[in-house]
Amino acid sequence: MAFTAVRPLRFGDCDPSGIAYFPSYLHLLVGVMEEFFDSIGAPWPVMMGERRISVPTVRLDITFSHPGVHGDVLDFALGVRRVGKSSLDLIHRITCGGTLLWSAEQRIVATDTDTHRARPWPDDMRAAFEQHLESTNV
Amino acid sequence: MAFTAVRPLRFGDCDPSGIAYFPSYLHLLVGVMEEFFDSIGAPWPVMMGERRISVPTVRLDITFSHPGVHGDVLDFALGVRRVGKSSLDLIHRITCGGTLLWSAEQRIVATDTDTHRARPWPDDMRAAFEQHLESTNV
Amino acid sequence: MAFTAVRPLRFGDCDPSGIAYFPSYLHLLVGVMEEFFDSIGAPWPVMMGERRISVPTVRLDITFSHPGVHGDVLDFALGVRRVGKSSLDLIHRITCGGTLLWSAEQRIVATDTDTHRARPWPDDMRAAFEQHLESTNV
Amino acid sequence: MAFTAVRPLRFGDCDPSGIAYFPSYLHLLVGVMEEFFDSIGAPWPVMMGERRISVPTVRLDITFSHPGVHGDVLDFALGVRRVGKSSLDLIHRITCGGTLLWSAEQRIVATDTDTHRARPWPDDMRAAFEQHLESTNV
Repeated sequence: MAFTAVRPLRFGDCDPSGIAYFPSYLHLLVGVMEEFFDSIGAPWPVMMGERRISVPTVRLDITFSHPGVHGDVLDFALGVRRVGKSSLDLIHRITCGGTLLWSAEQRIVATDTDTHRARPWPDDMRAAFEQHLESTNV
Repeated sequence: MAFTAVRPLRFGDCDPSGIAYFPSYLHLLVGVMEEFFDSIGAPWPVMMGERRISVPTVRLDITFSHPGVHGDVLDFALGVRRVGKSSLDLIHRITCGGTLLWSAEQRIVATDTDTHRARPWPDDMRAAFEQHLESTNV
Repeated sequence: MAFTAVRPLRFGDCDPSGIAYFPSYLHLLVGVMEEFFDSIGAPWPVMMGERRISVPTVRLDITFSHPGVHGDVLDFALGVRRVGKSSLDLIHRITCGGTLLWSAEQRIVATDTDTHRARPWPDDMRAAFEQHLESTNV
Repeated sequence: MAFTAVRPLRFGDCDPSGIAYFPSYLHLLVGVMEEFFDSIGAPWPVMMGERRISVPTVRLDITFSHPGVHGDVLDFALGVRRVGKSSLDLIHRITCGGTLLWSAEQRIVATDTDTHRARPWPDDMRAAFEQHLESTNV
């Protein structure tokens, strides 16, 4: 099963045409991704601050299917697609009341916070991702 | 030739790891896209307010090649790839000092601001896009 | 007692110096204010969309006492200070683990969503504010 | 004379009620402040990165006088009010076509980027502020 999180679509996330402003959607997405890392025991303040691991995005393919409107309750579902040596492929589906609003495929890469160079995932994080991968596929 | 715009990468666009926060990149991108519409004589306040045409994004595929850092001067280049009946395919390249930082392919669709349904491009906008398409290809 | 809400301080709310970016604090504050209106039975989508009442801010005085850092859990407390004919004075205190990070005094005004002109609070909203005012003072 | 900067009020800075979203105003304000520091020879990437000086805001009092609407061209004017040992008091006036939209009084403090503790302004920055102070008053 995928990691899930709920976010109301707030006034400040919408634009003058009354629908979600897509850069705000992505700000929400990054927050959900951070919450996913909390859930697997790798909170970002520790991961980035002490372990010096950053997780920049290198690919992001988004399809917006249906406009989100102010007041919508957004259901984020995040699944693990593939765990590479230093990369991680995620899939996101964002629905409201069962209707798909948008979806995204995202590749992040583990980097050294100081040099910005790719580095392998540490064993504990890799194991957590793989457990999530298996449970995603069942 | 593509439409171009310059944007400094400001403090408020960067994250605790010291590089550009990607949702902020996309906020900048929307601003550049709005400036492109200014340049073809279709400023958004009039287009959306009076003509009731909105231009939501339906597809966005982004590749982040190199991290942008605070103080970088970003060169945005926007080209027209294809003009559909009610869609428009854009390509974006964002460089700093000639180095590619990120690129994106984007599809937007003309919709009725009130109903959010797709509608054809008006003739003047279509002509402007096509002129840009030709000049992009030369 | 004041209305309260909890918000983690996320990666995307922090700046390259590693502390909260204050415009992001204010984006969170607007979300908390919207949640307060939910709690008194005046959700903004209905209030703005159907009843045509907007609530712009006309005064905002903020004191930042202590920097918030990535990973802090923020406790927002919102109290009603004064209910005017068409204005509302709010006070906000944002703490982390009991330490005051920042506080704000805010005046909002009820306006007509279409004309942007001030208008009196409707009776139900005024009653809800006043109940909150009393309970805040006890 | 004050330092000035021009900013169009873009689609992405406005809210569903069609006017400027105030946290976006403040994001623009921080960018203007950064540009002011550029103008006095203290660009933030160098100031923060090499000299380890940060400039957090400790007080901000804002009055919103008139709503800004999508498409407005905003004229930011920034003046220096007072130069303290480690503090700096700024005043901001934001107008559109001569009409005051909002104004703010802001106190920032020089801190050590690593310890977040107050520190005195270096001589070159103090001198630049004071020159601006004088020229502001003339």
